[in-house]
Amino acid sequence: MHVSQDRAIAEAVGSRAKTTAEVFGPLHDEPLSIGMLMYPGLDQIDFTGPFEVLARISNATMHLIGTQKASFRDHMGLILTPEMVLAEAPELDVLLVPGGPGQEAMMKREPVLAFIRDHMESQKPLFSVCTGALICGAAGILKGRRVTTHWAAFDLLPYFGAIPVNERVVVDGNLISAAGVTAGIDGSLVVASLLRGENAAQRIQLELQYAPEPPFDAGVPETAPRDVLAAVTAQYQPLLEARLVTAREFSAGCIANETQS
Amino acid sequence: MHVSQDRAIAEAVGSRAKTTAEVFGPLHDEPLSIGMLMYPGLDQIDFTGPFEVLARISNATMHLIGTQKASFRDHMGLILTPEMVLAEAPELDVLLVPGGPGQEAMMKREPVLAFIRDHMESQKPLFSVCTGALICGAAGILKGRRVTTHWAAFDLLPYFGAIPVNERVVVDGNLISAAGVTAGIDGSLVVASLLRGENAAQRIQLELQYAPEPPFDAGVPETAPRDVLAAVTAQYQPLLEARLVTAREFSAGCIANETQS
Repeated sequence: MHVSQDRAIAEAVGSRAKTTAEVFGPLHDEPLSIGMLMYPGLDQIDFTGPFEVLARISNATMHLIGTQKASFRDHMGLILTPEMVLAEAPELDVLLVPGGPGQEAMMKREPVLAFIRDHMESQKPLFSVCTGALICGAAGILKGRRVTTHWAAFDLLPYFGAIPVNERVVVDGNLISAAGVTAGIDGSLVVASLLRGENAAQRIQLELQYAPEPPFDAGVPETAPRDVLAAVTAQYQPLLEARLVTAREFSAGCIANETQS
Repeated sequence: MHVSQDRAIAEAVGSRAKTTAEVFGPLHDEPLSIGMLMYPGLDQIDFTGPFEVLARISNATMHLIGTQKASFRDHMGLILTPEMVLAEAPELDVLLVPGGPGQEAMMKREPVLAFIRDHMESQKPLFSVCTGALICGAAGILKGRRVTTHWAAFDLLPYFGAIPVNERVVVDGNLISAAGVTAGIDGSLVVASLLRGENAAQRIQLELQYAPEPPFDAGVPETAPRDVLAAVTAQYQPLLEARLVTAREFSAGCIANETQS
């Protein structure tokens, strides 16, 4: 009787997404494996911002997981070096998926998408930064989820079945998403607090002297001067068009799996 | 008559530090060479934060200058790779000096200090982030200058003859300094605006969606909960003691030049 009740509960839990409280459970200091995906053409601070925060979590081991073994350049030319490839990654307690223009190619690489999908199925925390959300979308894990991304990609979220939420950091069950680029710093402090508590996150914030004072109020379309927004939007146009094509292809279910490596 | 007057003016200007307006001059879009110093044990976001901003400056070429040729790890283990060594660096319009625990060793490397000193003597913009200021101090370039650094190193500035200013970004002539770690993002937006104008800096800010929303108000000692400040200060103690010894040695004029490489 008890057993069948437990089984019924387990099956009910298994068939639905866990709540954030269920995902993170009570605070503890057990070892954590934190994985960070890395790929050519990412926007490096989507990755280095969260690394700065997450690497300071107590009793955590960072796993820098490349989609290729070799060093590569970020979108603006910085050389980054992974420590392992997808197949070598251990079981992860947290997975970060950063964004940047290189996300376009990753959206068509089935091994990358399968890796993200597998982690999501474990219902362990998955942390998307910037247009990392589009890769997660291509992996099919955003359906019915509340998600944010870079402001310039925000309107693409519905193509992946996501519910767009125009906030800097969005927490939905095991899925944490941050808006564009520098939002990954705020998002990773939220992740740190969910994993180890507010006090631990505040210690990291103090170490990083993270009391930002942007010299201008131009960080989002809502506050940027009109000519600034127009200039950046014009500069993004080719990338935005490419992303729209990919999103529509995905929505129509006709993404080709170009690479199996 | 005119010639001797001009010479007298030139000599007078030469013998004093230029004002910020003289350093940056009228806005232009001429090519810029931006150099970023890199060394083992730096705090990577002191470097990657400014890279994210400065690499987006129009008509600028980034020069990533290692104190060694090989890849190295940052303080928390991230692998970074320089593109050239000190001797290979071109003439620079801007030089960034990042901080992090590895700064201790750099304060005793004469070639690094000479490189910083030479750039400072050109009176071109020099941008110090976090405890990069201590390396600049060891190079002897902070005397009489208004400077900021990481909160935990702030009290060391007078050992180098600097005037400590408890602000997030301080501009004094050709010397721009940012406080700890993440302050480099704010500082580099200030540098971008000085180099290319406010509009250009705002475009970069919008690209990076830099409208920060720290989840806690613990980024500086003045606002951090008391137990958080106590914990971080205790954790820093060995590093703080080492830095104090070095600062006192410098102040007493007895820093040894341990390395000539």
